[in-house]
Parts: sequence; C-alpha cells; structure tokens
Amino acid sequence: MEFKANSKELEKLLAKIIPAVPTRTPMQILENILLEVENGVLTVYATDLEISLKSFLNIASDENIKIVIPARLFYDIIKSLKDTTVHFKINGNKRLEITTEKGKYTLSYIDADEFPEIPTINTSNDVYEISINGQDLKSAFDKTAFAMSKEEIRPAMMGTLFEFCDEGLRFVTTDGHRLVNYLNKNIKADINKQYVVPERAVSVLSKVLDEKELKVYFTNSYVSFKLNDMELITRLIAQKYPEYKSVIPLENEYALRVKTNELLDSIKRMMLFTTSTTRRVKFSIDSEQIIISAEDIDIGAAGEEEVKCEYRGEKMEIGFNSTYINDILSHLSDYDEIIFKLHSPTKAVIIEPVEQKENTDLMMLLMPVRLNT
Amino acid sequence: MEFKANSKELEKLLAKIIPAVPTRTPMQILENILLEVENGVLTVYATDLEISLKSFLNIASDENIKIVIPARLFYDIIKSLKDTTVHFKINGNKRLEITTEKGKYTLSYIDADEFPEIPTINTSNDVYEISINGQDLKSAFDKTAFAMSKEEIRPAMMGTLFEFCDEGLRFVTTDGHRLVNYLNKNIKADINKQYVVPERAVSVLSKVLDEKELKVYFTNSYVSFKLNDMELITRLIAQKYPEYKSVIPLENEYALRVKTNELLDSIKRMMLFTTSTTRRVKFSIDSEQIIISAEDIDIGAAGEEEVKCEYRGEKMEIGFNSTYINDILSHLSDYDEIIFKLHSPTKAVIIEPVEQKENTDLMMLLMPVRLNT
Repeated sequence: MEFKANSKELEKLLAKIIPAVPTRTPMQILENILLEVENGVLTVYATDLEISLKSFLNIASDENIKIVIPARLFYDIIKSLKDTTVHFKINGNKRLEITTEKGKYTLSYIDADEFPEIPTINTSNDVYEISINGQDLKSAFDKTAFAMSKEEIRPAMMGTLFEFCDEGLRFVTTDGHRLVNYLNKNIKADINKQYVVPERAVSVLSKVLDEKELKVYFTNSYVSFKLNDMELITRLIAQKYPEYKSVIPLENEYALRVKTNELLDSIKRMMLFTTSTTRRVKFSIDSEQIIISAEDIDIGAAGEEEVKCEYRGEKMEIGFNSTYINDILSHLSDYDEIIFKLHSPTKAVIIEPVEQKENTDLMMLLMPVRLNT
Repeated sequence: MEFKANSKELEKLLAKIIPAVPTRTPMQILENILLEVENGVLTVYATDLEISLKSFLNIASDENIKIVIPARLFYDIIKSLKDTTVHFKINGNKRLEITTEKGKYTLSYIDADEFPEIPTINTSNDVYEISINGQDLKSAFDKTAFAMSKEEIRPAMMGTLFEFCDEGLRFVTTDGHRLVNYLNKNIKADINKQYVVPERAVSVLSKVLDEKELKVYFTNSYVSFKLNDMELITRLIAQKYPEYKSVIPLENEYALRVKTNELLDSIKRMMLFTTSTTRRVKFSIDSEQIIISAEDIDIGAAGEEEVKCEYRGEKMEIGFNSTYINDILSHLSDYDEIIFKLHSPTKAVIIEPVEQKENTDLMMLLMPVRLNT
C-alpha cells in the first residue's frame, strides 16, 4: 500500500489541522492524526474532542489506507524536508515508511479504529446553512473574542454568541465585567436564532480565515465551518446565553468624547502605577479634561496625567480596572474617537465609536470599580 | 535638587545597564539602580554582584544627587514616554518626582549608601591594558560562548578563557564534552597570561558590542571593558583554567571532508528520531558517503540519510550526541566546508574549517558517545 505527495503541499495541509492537536492531554491518542487515502484523495483529521479539523489533498495512490500517526513528529519530519516528492509505504510490521531521494524514515502507526469518531454534519437533517465572508467573520472575532469568560461557572459565557436577527448577525461576548456587542449588517439571516460557539473554535478559526467566502452549517449540537480545502467542526455550548440586553443601561445621559489613542497611551502608562491586586485607575472627569491617575501604595509609586476631552454631564470620579479598560481601548484603537456614556460611578458605562464602520455596529460595556476601598 | 533630561536619551542610557539587573534575586536591593548626578553628568549603575554596568549622559542640573530607585519600573516609565523633556525633582519625603508636559509620576527612592559598592579598576596599580576591536571580540564570543559549562563542579569551565600569547589572543571554552579554541591574530599582546571571564559578562557584552574599539583593563581579580559611554566590570573566575592543550589529540590521522550545511541539515532531521535520553546519532563513514542514522526505540521511529563526503581512512562507525554536534555545526555554518579528524570511535574528534577566515584560527573538539548501549 503506497502513495506519494509533494513535501511542501503536505506541509501546508498539516499546518491547517495541527491547531486542533492538543499540546497536553491525558488522552494520548489525541496527539495523533488520522490519515486517510481514499480514491486518490489524502484526508487528514485532528481532534481534541471539542473541535475537529480536517483537510484534504489530491495525491497519487494505488490503494486505500487509513492509519493513525503521531501528529507533531510527522509534521516536524515533513517540515524539515526540502521541496521534494515523498513516498509513503505501509509495511506489515505496523510501520509507515517515508522515503525521499536522500533519506528513509520509519514511524510506528496505530490502527484507525482507535481514533475518536469525527462528527459529521448530516445536511439532510435539521441544518441551518449560511454563507459568510471570511473577513467579516474574522473582523467580528477580532473585536469580540477578548471579552469571553475564562471561568467555568457559566459555560455559555466561555463562548461567542452568534445571534441571527432581522438586522443581521450579532456577535456578543461577556465575562460579567465587560461586554462586547458587534452587529454585522452584511450578513442577511432569514431566521431568529442563537448559537454559542466555544472559545477554542473561535481562536483556531481566527488564524485560518481570509477574505474568501465560507459555508457555515448549524445543527442543534454542532456547527461546521467549511473553507476551501478544510473544515472545522465544533460542539456548540449547550447552555442558554445570558439575557445580555437586560444589562445594557438605557439611562446613561452623560457623554464623554475623547481621542481613543490619546486615552489608551495614558492608560498604558498608568498601568505601571496600579496596585497589582486592584489594578485600579481613576478618571476625574471635568468638562474639558480627564485627570487619569493611579497609585501603587505597596511600592510608593504614583502617576497622574491629563487627557483632553469634551464632556456633557456632572463632574464625576469613577474607577476602572486598568487591564479591562486597556483591553477595550486597544480593540477600539482603529476608531479615531470614542464616546463614554455614563450615569454614575457605580453603573455600567457604555463605550462606542463616534463613527461606526460601514454596515457594522459596535458597542462595549464596562463595569466600574469602587474608588473608596 | 533638580535635573532634566531628554526621555529618549535616558531610555538609551537605561537600556545599556538593564542587562545587569537580575530578574530574580533574594537581595531585593539589586533590583534597583544607583542614579548619580555630579557636575552635569548623570551616571547610572546596576550590578548583580558578579558584573556591574555603568553608563553616563550629560544633562542639565543644579546640584549633586545620589539615589537608588527601582530599575525596571523606572525604565518602563521612561520607555512609555514620547520624545520629551523630563524634569526630575527630589522632595523631602524620599520621593522622586518625574514631571513631563502631560503628566506627573512619583517614585519612592532609597538612600545611596544601601546600594552595594561598585568595584573600580585603579589604573595606577598592577593593570594590564589593551585595546580590542569590538567586532573581533564579538566574533570570538559568537564562536565560543556556546561551549561554556553550566555545571558548577569546575567553576573555571563556566567562563571563557582569554589567553594572551605570542600568536595573539586565544579564546577557549569547554564543558568536558566539547571544546572550542579560537585564535585572533589581530590582537597583539605583549604578555603571556590567562584570565577567565564569567559567562554572564560574555553574554551581556555580546549584546552591546559593535565595531568600535574598546579598552580592556585586567587586574588579578577584575576586568573592565570600557566602551564609548559605558563600562562593564566583572569579577574574574579565580580558579585556574584546565590544561586544555593536553586533551587535543595529535594522532588523528583520518580526515573526513564534508559540506557543512548539508551535514547540518541532515543532523537537524535526525534529531527528530533520537531517543530523548541518549540523543545519539550514528555516523557510518565510507570513502564517499556518510550514512547518518538515529532511532527512537521508545516510540518506534527511525531515520537514516546519506551525505556525500571525501574520506581518507578506515571505514568507521561512530556515535555523537546530536545536540552537541548540532551546536558545533551551527557555529561553523558560515564556513563552506569542514574537516573531521578522527582516530577511533572512542577518541575525541577534531572539527575544523577547510579554509580559515583571515587572521583567525578556529578548532572544535567533540567527544563521541558509545554505540553499543
């Protein structure tokens, strides 16, 4: 049983599925990939039981083969080869022989039936199918992914909400301290439905998406993202997403307008002075300026800076976790100016771009922290 | 007490001395720098008690100041500032006030007498002084530093030997498994003497050296490297360096000539197949080819490759630690061809470039490993 392939094409193929191979796992089989040759198509699969990646390549082969081999070792070997034809041969001794012009390498393989089953989407059943532009999806993840929760208490918050609605496709992430709400109006949905996609699927997709269209298939338990020559299938998070709309305040009547990057630079410097436990930075807001200040009592260091602004509202002192506000401003840094909508030092603050980008609507929400502790 | 300086000049100054600040130390005082203003010159000092770095800058000041401040925090603050004038002021409360156009920052300082004493070279005493080109020194470190020992059993081997001799300045490093001997004939010494410079001094110097001349001052206990606007002083290792000449074999009569990077590429691939305990790679040497092979029994993987060579000698099978031979070949990769001088599978092997670079002489030595274990 033999087949052959070009080393560089094979390297590209493997590069696509390697992200699904877990680096540390008690289930050693997951450190392998399933390699399948069927009718002149080589397909490789990797899974961590949550997400699965598969990719394929047309090759020259005489018979069908299905084996399981160590993922990283195989990838490292293929990567280390120059651009050349690689011959593969299965020998009777459960060995895969890899031969090039200059060398010969042998790997033990495992039988294919020991590999976990890869879920497939049965498109004849109850499936919602939609085309999405890769860049649209990538932009949405870029703006929202950072705010997903890392705490396992509320599983739904460890994912990104995909909410199909009349206006388009809305992406929501929150960890309870901050929330991001990003609407893409390009994506025309014909249903009203919510799906929660886990963090790992979002992070792997972010790395492989480009401007090409992709097909997305949602069932009640799984979603499949089909790109040109690869497919990512992931479990959906089975828990209902929190009622995020109820936490967005409507009565925030004070508006603070500021240049995004001026404020961000200042926050970055103030982070040097925040106490490592509270990480608190204080905004003292007046009609034409904000005094940003922080103090690390433990080491006796303090800083304060002035940032110009336009403020309509009552003078206010309000505290934020500097890491959170730094995250938010960093993800808004491609917008020239932003508006903070405030009500009081204890109520959630809305942060929005002054000018939205075409066909999108971005809003972030941040809980303040107490100043008098 | 006040002074002022440009933020970017100050940043460059601090970048030079930060490498001497230890990242983890039980002596907290070493995480600080000594900042001294005297007659319009700002000098900063850092030390880890083994090496000391100092650098200076002309500034505007009215009085003399000497304080100790947290190294990294101060560096981070200065780095975070735009190109601007920074005003410094000592206030009564043991605080250093740092003021720019836009902000004000405060740091606690410690009294200067709590900082460890920085050694100085008294040039009137028994000092050997020599000028060395920075690039010459950097090249020597680049070729030799990797082979210094990390084991504390033989302190001398944890440093680089500077041997002034009739032919020039010789640099020697060894960890007992391999040895590098690099002679620079540009450097004309008028003494015959050995000094052992510790690893940390070599590693810090490597980062700051350029093509400029530097002055080097050796005493019996210390050496000072004086660059343009900075100085590194380090303790010398007080132990005598091993008699390295006695381990260099003279009877290695077999010569193997090979293209450096062909062999190196092959070794890198073979490293994927070595057992993690022995890391052994085997050379089966014949008159026109070497078969390089390795096997990882634990995971059932093996590889072998053919590399062309010219060999004068008896057929031989010899084993090497793949990490060591990879290190050696990587440091010879700017030489097109190399020669292995061999005697038997249990005797040290000499590895040399076929053509030496102008005014230098480079030789490496590697102990083989047993094949039958």
